[in-house]
Amino acid sequence: MSATTAAYEPTGRTLPSRARERARYDRETVHSILDQAYLCHLGFVRDGAPVVLPTLYGRVGETLYVHGSTGSRPLLAAGKADPGLPVCLTVTHVDGLVLARSAFHHSMNYRSVVVHGTAHQVTDAEERRIALDALVDQVVPGRSADSRPANARELAATAVIRLDLNEVSAKVRTGGPNDDPEDLGLPHWSGVVPVAPAYGTPVPAADLAPGIAVPDYISAL
Amino acid sequence: MSATTAAYEPTGRTLPSRARERARYDRETVHSILDQAYLCHLGFVRDGAPVVLPTLYGRVGETLYVHGSTGSRPLLAAGKADPGLPVCLTVTHVDGLVLARSAFHHSMNYRSVVVHGTAHQVTDAEERRIALDALVDQVVPGRSADSRPANARELAATAVIRLDLNEVSAKVRTGGPNDDPEDLGLPHWSGVVPVAPAYGTPVPAADLAPGIAVPDYISAL
Repeated sequence: MSATTAAYEPTGRTLPSRARERARYDRETVHSILDQAYLCHLGFVRDGAPVVLPTLYGRVGETLYVHGSTGSRPLLAAGKADPGLPVCLTVTHVDGLVLARSAFHHSMNYRSVVVHGTAHQVTDAEERRIALDALVDQVVPGRSADSRPANARELAATAVIRLDLNEVSAKVRTGGPNDDPEDLGLPHWSGVVPVAPAYGTPVPAADLAPGIAVPDYISAL
Repeated sequence: MSATTAAYEPTGRTLPSRARERARYDRETVHSILDQAYLCHLGFVRDGAPVVLPTLYGRVGETLYVHGSTGSRPLLAAGKADPGLPVCLTVTHVDGLVLARSAFHHSMNYRSVVVHGTAHQVTDAEERRIALDALVDQVVPGRSADSRPANARELAATAVIRLDLNEVSAKVRTGGPNDDPEDLGLPHWSGVVPVAPAYGTPVPAADLAPGIAVPDYISAL
């Protein structure tokens, strides 16, 4: 289907005002950046002022899901506002610290995705189940099948909102420092320090019954 | 001075609507979370809609500095708008994946800081120098002294904005999963997978002159 293979159409707010060479609109790049993370920063407007909160998300095809308590303010707003809640959802990976000879050319290697759109509450029971599984599996792939699914009371306490991937852009910086030619002889070390998230040894819950080993899908992280 | 030792005063928008036991307002916690990071997600409102962009910051006392091209839209807005630009600046560390027996009790160990306020352009030359050094040293402590400072042309191309730490809150979650008592006998592994950023071996620039070793302040990362 061409709608899912074509690139996202740039808009006034997804065309960067600068560093245009870093912008990407192809779905493969966007999906890959989203699929390698689980934390986003969700922005919305409250009383005319911006609010940015860290939260988990899950991707299912061309939709991102975010969840929270039915008492949380952005989720309430998404449910109340008939046209939904305008949001900006941003995901960023830091891949390296770029150290140039000049302070000015210091930079960061990174991959980010910015999604603009309107978030809506999900009320369909089946879609809510899919979204909640996706949120768990986004953090640890395979985990939703190895945990107790939400019961009726938990489902009633959980709000799920959806944001479709329509107005989307990625930005990617790779490579070394871009020093000016006249700075190349300066005596400062320059290069890239790679950065990546690292997982430590899993720590069992204090009340974990003996004999339950760390599953392969966790060791594989 | 009591103004810098007292906790930040909670306000309507820094009092969480839920999980209040995770909220912190003391400066030591807030400063420590800010000082261990360098990337923030900066939110502002453009044409009535939220925008969230990843960017670097530097802390100097009770002020955060953000910089960018003089052509970048939020920085232009901060310069033009006489009363400044309302922003929300958020910093998040992920410390662990919390895997409970129930999908519902899955969580994340994290430390975050949310700063609400109004950003203003910095025009004073001395304050701009201090801010730019702080931005470099926030990423790699000690680096600003080992790089060529910005020259007049670079300074003219760089906008710096400041955001004072007044309306600030931190949120901290630590510890293991909080499963319900009736779930403790379920056969699912539960516990915490620690997460932390890891630095790789520094990669010298392709054009780095031979004989310039990796400095100690980089090896120490």
